[in-house]
Amino acid sequence: MQFLSDNTATACPEILAALAAANRGRVHSYGEDEWTQRLDKMFSALFDIEVRSFAVATGTAANSLGLATLAPPYGAIFAHQEAHIETDECGAPAFFSGGAQLALVPGEHGRLSPEGFARALADHPSVNVGLHSVQPAALSLTQMTELGTVYRAADLKQLCELAHGRGLKVQMDGARFANAVAHLNCHPADITWRAGIDVLSFGATKNGALGAEAVVFFDPALVRDFELRRKRAGHLFSKSRFIAAQLVGYLENDLWLRNARRTNGLAQRLAKAAGASLLHPVEGNELFLALGVERREALRAQGFEFYDWGPPHRGEARLVVCWDQPEAEVDALAGALARL
Amino acid sequence: MQFLSDNTATACPEILAALAAANRGRVHSYGEDEWTQRLDKMFSALFDIEVRSFAVATGTAANSLGLATLAPPYGAIFAHQEAHIETDECGAPAFFSGGAQLALVPGEHGRLSPEGFARALADHPSVNVGLHSVQPAALSLTQMTELGTVYRAADLKQLCELAHGRGLKVQMDGARFANAVAHLNCHPADITWRAGIDVLSFGATKNGALGAEAVVFFDPALVRDFELRRKRAGHLFSKSRFIAAQLVGYLENDLWLRNARRTNGLAQRLAKAAGASLLHPVEGNELFLALGVERREALRAQGFEFYDWGPPHRGEARLVVCWDQPEAEVDALAGALARL
Amino acid sequence: MQFLSDNTATACPEILAALAAANRGRVHSYGEDEWTQRLDKMFSALFDIEVRSFAVATGTAANSLGLATLAPPYGAIFAHQEAHIETDECGAPAFFSGGAQLALVPGEHGRLSPEGFARALADHPSVNVGLHSVQPAALSLTQMTELGTVYRAADLKQLCELAHGRGLKVQMDGARFANAVAHLNCHPADITWRAGIDVLSFGATKNGALGAEAVVFFDPALVRDFELRRKRAGHLFSKSRFIAAQLVGYLENDLWLRNARRTNGLAQRLAKAAGASLLHPVEGNELFLALGVERREALRAQGFEFYDWGPPHRGEARLVVCWDQPEAEVDALAGALARL
Amino acid sequence: MQFLSDNTATACPEILAALAAANRGRVHSYGEDEWTQRLDKMFSALFDIEVRSFAVATGTAANSLGLATLAPPYGAIFAHQEAHIETDECGAPAFFSGGAQLALVPGEHGRLSPEGFARALADHPSVNVGLHSVQPAALSLTQMTELGTVYRAADLKQLCELAHGRGLKVQMDGARFANAVAHLNCHPADITWRAGIDVLSFGATKNGALGAEAVVFFDPALVRDFELRRKRAGHLFSKSRFIAAQLVGYLENDLWLRNARRTNGLAQRLAKAAGASLLHPVEGNELFLALGVERREALRAQGFEFYDWGPPHRGEARLVVCWDQPEAEVDALAGALARL
Repeated sequence: MQFLSDNTATACPEILAALAAANRGRVHSYGEDEWTQRLDKMFSALFDIEVRSFAVATGTAANSLGLATLAPPYGAIFAHQEAHIETDECGAPAFFSGGAQLALVPGEHGRLSPEGFARALADHPSVNVGLHSVQPAALSLTQMTELGTVYRAADLKQLCELAHGRGLKVQMDGARFANAVAHLNCHPADITWRAGIDVLSFGATKNGALGAEAVVFFDPALVRDFELRRKRAGHLFSKSRFIAAQLVGYLENDLWLRNARRTNGLAQRLAKAAGASLLHPVEGNELFLALGVERREALRAQGFEFYDWGPPHRGEARLVVCWDQPEAEVDALAGALARL
Repeated sequence: MQFLSDNTATACPEILAALAAANRGRVHSYGEDEWTQRLDKMFSALFDIEVRSFAVATGTAANSLGLATLAPPYGAIFAHQEAHIETDECGAPAFFSGGAQLALVPGEHGRLSPEGFARALADHPSVNVGLHSVQPAALSLTQMTELGTVYRAADLKQLCELAHGRGLKVQMDGARFANAVAHLNCHPADITWRAGIDVLSFGATKNGALGAEAVVFFDPALVRDFELRRKRAGHLFSKSRFIAAQLVGYLENDLWLRNARRTNGLAQRLAKAAGASLLHPVEGNELFLALGVERREALRAQGFEFYDWGPPHRGEARLVVCWDQPEAEVDALAGALARL
Repeated sequence: MQFLSDNTATACPEILAALAAANRGRVHSYGEDEWTQRLDKMFSALFDIEVRSFAVATGTAANSLGLATLAPPYGAIFAHQEAHIETDECGAPAFFSGGAQLALVPGEHGRLSPEGFARALADHPSVNVGLHSVQPAALSLTQMTELGTVYRAADLKQLCELAHGRGLKVQMDGARFANAVAHLNCHPADITWRAGIDVLSFGATKNGALGAEAVVFFDPALVRDFELRRKRAGHLFSKSRFIAAQLVGYLENDLWLRNARRTNGLAQRLAKAAGASLLHPVEGNELFLALGVERREALRAQGFEFYDWGPPHRGEARLVVCWDQPEAEVDALAGALARL
Repeated sequence: MQFLSDNTATACPEILAALAAANRGRVHSYGEDEWTQRLDKMFSALFDIEVRSFAVATGTAANSLGLATLAPPYGAIFAHQEAHIETDECGAPAFFSGGAQLALVPGEHGRLSPEGFARALADHPSVNVGLHSVQPAALSLTQMTELGTVYRAADLKQLCELAHGRGLKVQMDGARFANAVAHLNCHPADITWRAGIDVLSFGATKNGALGAEAVVFFDPALVRDFELRRKRAGHLFSKSRFIAAQLVGYLENDLWLRNARRTNGLAQRLAKAAGASLLHPVEGNELFLALGVERREALRAQGFEFYDWGPPHRGEARLVVCWDQPEAEVDALAGALARL
């Protein structure tokens, strides 16, 4: 029974159906098709403000292209030290931006605190050495975070105010944005532009798409630069309708939110069973457990697949619930956790 | 009736079926799935030699990632002056390689001649100024070319020998590779590794996929560098099976070749009808016509959509037959051309 | 007797004296010294407008750093096809800018004509394919040109108007700017900001410095970006006074202009002697001669050193007069040329 | 009395004399002159092994060009968290390499310990996530370190063995290499190639030159790549003799070592006077003192100029002895420190 990653999941039938629906007749290429053209309207409705949105196929592309529009080659991008852009994208932000550097900030449970970020800004070498250092340019926040937790709107607002006050733009890595909205039960605007986010990677792949993410711009001034960078990076699709249609299917009838609510709910069952083993609050579809090596391997021996986490000797584990996870598997795992 | 571009076409039912077939159960991500793992075997069988192959989603990514493994930042990449990498990829080769520069070479009907390439090598500034100039590093050939023509195996061999003799590697942009094989009715090996090609962009998107191209390495030493560049550029897919499955469906039962044979055959009908208007031999699914502005607009007025080509006053046109082009449309166009 | 290049020359005594004068006492580093601080005033006085100026040590650095502030990574920089940035800087503009591409334009005697540039703008692929192409961003003009000729103020004005009208900034490679001013006997402002130049590489190395060029900004908005790029590229000097002092010595008492007048004058003697062999008007310190292989080698056999120019069979030669060229050598060469 | 930085110092008379001596007659440019050509012989003699050496004008250029030959764009460069390449070069290593990332390692007194480096290698994300992470490519060591301490040959050897064992190359930032050799009283080979260093930035600027550093390659395979990167970055000098001559003057008669011995000796006087205030062992020409804000300002009030160090409330200071520091100033400072 796999609890390895939401990237192991299948694609939603609704999204495959949207693909099939888009596969009728010849249409103009490179985005001049009705599916791609619907995205701006759909995202504008979703976020209750006029936005520009662009479909790409991977989270790394979405994040790095977004960040490259915000940070010059000599820019510093502040991010949590566990951020995906630091640990899992092979230096993509530096590649796309022409050299921008991450300024890593610690923070409990995967979240930056306003205090922590303020301190990082104050301590940044550029304060002392001026142009001998890279220059603060952007803040990247992950919602939901890498450790399965969710930022509250008020915290985001404070973080964005700090950033904007220093002339930084703010990007949000929303690979699991749906889980955050589902958890907070808030309007998507509350944790994006109303809080001060300038550009959002709105993830779909992990939550049911084949490979589709939207880059949503709340600041239209950035769009032209983005479009040229996207083309140049090979992330403008000739048959654009097939990426766009995935997003259309994902947004229609709130599929994105329904999937996220389901996985969040299943994860809560597991959280209850895990009890004191939890390393972080469970606010989405991911659990981080301090089991110790022995209990961890015992769990594995019962047929549960998951990734180890952290330094080997600590015996920690990460378990992820997929949108297509059978309830029976979750119950089996809950039982096993409770028995441990 | 659209004859705009093969990028306007739908996806093949066989490829959609392959997608659906791949959508069963949770599988490991980032290429550790059976579809991705089948690619090396399928391409090795196809090319009759052991190759390494990688699925990406756009031609720009395939070409630029391939070229970036061949050319250092101070490298020169020789290419036909009409090459897609020069005219339509917004400088992608420079982006992916960190600055490599195209050295453009003219050549009749979209093809480099061995003489032309030899001259370009001899005249390259590096010959006189040494390290004050960028250094010849790679040759990029397009098969089928941008002008609808096809290189013969013997010409490719001569070009590759010239390149290798000067220490250059050779990349092939095969966005329409299928059309070339169909036209020559040759073994795919004859116009790739047997001729000296080091890395091939094996296109599928224009010929029936949703968005899938394979980068095929005949030189395994280049693979590690490629893989890291691909990841870093956001072209490694978490749900890799959905790109790979498209290629599996495309290769199975020679779909790739059947589609190409059909479009090539239909284009021949048009070529006959066009007669003396043809600017270039028709060896694939593209026609380039010298109609003059008046006759061109007359054709358009009859309901045929296509792109203008070349300088406005010359009244030239490009017409492309898609894999899903109804025969009736082709016949209608042939009739119209014959009447012009 | 060497007529190879003005880079073979010694440094002027006045400039060495300025170095020695700057070598008194400890001073703040990285430009916080009186020599560096004098540059803005001296260049503002020279150009009769408030400028910002920065000392670097090579022409490649001056040009590429200037251009990188003007052109994004997806930018196109228009330049004459013989421009130094194309032929002799190993792709530096692409390196510094993160990938910007040169759009080469032909033009008689090394000069772009307004008509030629207008045509290049109109024919640029971006006009047809939009964001599939790199985007026109800058025009680079060389004054004096690579072929020893000089732009008139009126031509520069027309070229800059064309550029600005299309949203391009204009950079001037003034490695031999002094020779141009000396030839035109004009105010330096007339061929820079009054004509529309945004940033100038004001060369000193070829005309008597050890290694010093100033990047002069007539558009102060560009300065911050430039400063960070310069630092990051290793072209901000810790002991900045020793670059700045060279420029101070070069500007004081019009040394720059006196040297240029002398070399221009000596070159005129040679031009008269060369007569019909001249390939281009001699407007500075360089001569380009069509001698034929035989006469060229005969000249060489008399002890004159110079570079061959152009394709080998044409037998062309380039001869350069240095600031420290003994008059006797010039007379000897003039005699030899007259006798040929 | 300035104790701000060795970058505030004048140039040595011997080096100015070498410049003047190089200023005789016209010579070939771009390194084809006798001064530049002497460098390889002089450095080969100095290091007792055949080396290739290249003169550049800044430490940032020397370090970043060296590192860019060692690390691919997706490479990780291990360095001490206080390393100059991290804190004071505005992201230059990322710029020159096309995106390589620093992996920062803590270490007492500015030195990496073999244990600390081994741990950093073991903990590097690439160990767990493979190609999702940047790949260890190089180790950069600073000798003498940023905190005024010196690595022993045995420690360097251990560090280099660890690095080479993992396939990493090793670069040494020797901006103050002379001080390290003077302190250890060892053969320069002992702390470079005999310990395993592959490429060295051999600093001269801080120790008496106007602006000159040598990049010394103990691994000749790297040289061609370096030369092209240098040219392209604007760090190949047309009048190369004037950089090379500085290095010739610096090496002749052991000037480099004599200057370093003098400043090291003067710093020892200060170290004795400072006593318990010392934050780090004084092994070169730099002192780091924990004075507390009050005593620090008292010292400043007596006319001593120096930089604050570390977080403001801690009241720390850095004092640097220059090669041209009058003994009387050192004695005055020693007295003041003793009285504090």
